[in-house]
Amino acid sequence: MRTGRGSWILLAVGLAACSPAAPPATDRHWGIGIHGGAGTFTALDLPAGGVAEVRADMERALMAGHAILARGGSSLDAVQAAIVILEDSPNFNAGKGAVFTRDGKNELDAAIMDGRTLGAGAVAGLHHVKNPVLLARRVMENSPHVMMVGDGAEEFARQQGIEMVPPSYFRTEQSWQELQRHLATEKGSGKKGTVGAVALDQAGNLAAGTSTGGLTGKRWGRVGDVPIIGAGTYANNRSCAVSATGVGEFFIRNVVAHSICTLVEHRGMSIEEAADAVVIRLLGEQKGEGGVIAMDRNGNFTGTFNSQGMLRGHVGADGKPVVSLAWPEQP
Amino acid sequence: MRTGRGSWILLAVGLAACSPAAPPATDRHWGIGIHGGAGTFTALDLPAGGVAEVRADMERALMAGHAILARGGSSLDAVQAAIVILEDSPNFNAGKGAVFTRDGKNELDAAIMDGRTLGAGAVAGLHHVKNPVLLARRVMENSPHVMMVGDGAEEFARQQGIEMVPPSYFRTEQSWQELQRHLATEKGSGKKGTVGAVALDQAGNLAAGTSTGGLTGKRWGRVGDVPIIGAGTYANNRSCAVSATGVGEFFIRNVVAHSICTLVEHRGMSIEEAADAVVIRLLGEQKGEGGVIAMDRNGNFTGTFNSQGMLRGHVGADGKPVVSLAWPEQP
Repeated sequence: MRTGRGSWILLAVGLAACSPAAPPATDRHWGIGIHGGAGTFTALDLPAGGVAEVRADMERALMAGHAILARGGSSLDAVQAAIVILEDSPNFNAGKGAVFTRDGKNELDAAIMDGRTLGAGAVAGLHHVKNPVLLARRVMENSPHVMMVGDGAEEFARQQGIEMVPPSYFRTEQSWQELQRHLATEKGSGKKGTVGAVALDQAGNLAAGTSTGGLTGKRWGRVGDVPIIGAGTYANNRSCAVSATGVGEFFIRNVVAHSICTLVEHRGMSIEEAADAVVIRLLGEQKGEGGVIAMDRNGNFTGTFNSQGMLRGHVGADGKPVVSLAWPEQP
Repeated sequence: MRTGRGSWILLAVGLAACSPAAPPATDRHWGIGIHGGAGTFTALDLPAGGVAEVRADMERALMAGHAILARGGSSLDAVQAAIVILEDSPNFNAGKGAVFTRDGKNELDAAIMDGRTLGAGAVAGLHHVKNPVLLARRVMENSPHVMMVGDGAEEFARQQGIEMVPPSYFRTEQSWQELQRHLATEKGSGKKGTVGAVALDQAGNLAAGTSTGGLTGKRWGRVGDVPIIGAGTYANNRSCAVSATGVGEFFIRNVVAHSICTLVEHRGMSIEEAADAVVIRLLGEQKGEGGVIAMDRNGNFTGTFNSQGMLRGHVGADGKPVVSLAWPEQP
């Protein structure tokens, strides 16, 4: 298994995002980071629009978050705005671009968490909610609950006036063909990625969110790590904000997002050290493929992965987005 | 909010279970601990059979686990056997005795985790599975997944030959009356409790499991902490095994089970200190009512709660079960 520290062709605007120098603790700088999934991406796997389209989506998502943070808005709003843009793009495995289940359906999961209050919302098994992250936010703010699943979650969505769409909205040709390949070969694929965001606002509050269509060909009502608070999504002002992507089962068993925050809080590690310990060493030993983005309470950002690639980016107060699309050299 | 350290009338066989003296690290003693829920129990709330029946169920569950451990069986099998007995009793909010949702259904969740491998299985939103913990075990062992929900999970159950029952199986008069009270008053209740178990076997392996019917009157496909690995259920041979019960949302936001194990692993706390830090102090400050049972890798057991009562018990190699039913003095 190769790692985020490996030798990659980095197609980055500016510097690679994964190894910022740690500033002194007093030098807090607000910002937002996003990911568009980790896996075995290659240039050939990108959708028709290819590199340019994916990069444009990610820059738009970053700048939507940046605009909110720049005017003093909350990290929660910034994370939400960035994820909505990625959910609305067909180029990621979330919202519009969600992959198909074995039954030819799209089944969406999402979560969002407020590092200031530890408020959290999570939804799973949705078939008609255009932007699952918006429903997760409503669960957090307008219900006494943290997690809602399936038809019940959609009933709550309707009561909340959340935008509902017919299942056909989620049908993209790329995802459909991917299901056909999956059914023919029984192999996993993952050409498009889960999306997520982490942010620190000017008031010093952290937030994290994640949204996904799960696995191509999934069945049995399988739920991955994305809507599991502590596994795929976690934020706590005492430590950091994390959004994960990868083979969800490993992320659940290792409570990955919370484990990273725990090492920051209790062991005094930097987020880069903590993400290395969990994603590179712990998951790496288990062959648990994937990665995380994380941001600490000083605004330090890391994108750390043990898979072939992870689409990621971040932007700080200077308003210059940095997007990295990394994959191994093509044969 | 009163705590497990408060002044209670303890109706215990033998000594109270919550404060064992810590043995030296080399003195490992196998055993199993269980809970039958935390909340605002009073003697008047117990089912028809009352104290004697609840105590008998708990002793049977403990001794079923003990029998497996005594002959060198696994902690995973012991935890499962104990939970099945509590699920089959009408006196707990799990399996047979599950409470009703707002729609007059029973919706069951469960999880189990192997501290040796970090293997885990979790199920939620079941309506026809007699013993949810058995399905959680199958998810862990016979699928590549950790979590399955709703109809998909039940499809997997049928494929696995898990015993299915008609919804009427779960109808108990006490639970039905509780729903009517809830619908009339819109108040929470919780007269019967979630069940769970933690165990250490002779080979030194930890395991944890939890099973619940959720909240009386729940809606919107709400899922609590029980099937969330890290929140209501967690086991890791490096630290401890935990099963939680209480107001699930607080347990999810604080990733309670994993947090306790983390304090044991990274801060060198005893399980009692760690459970105090998380359940009494952290949850206590947030008014997050509930409790946990936890066992460390030396077999030390704690039952720690910030609610009025928690039904709990444990048994070690001596085969003498200790069951504690604690509640405040009746007026």
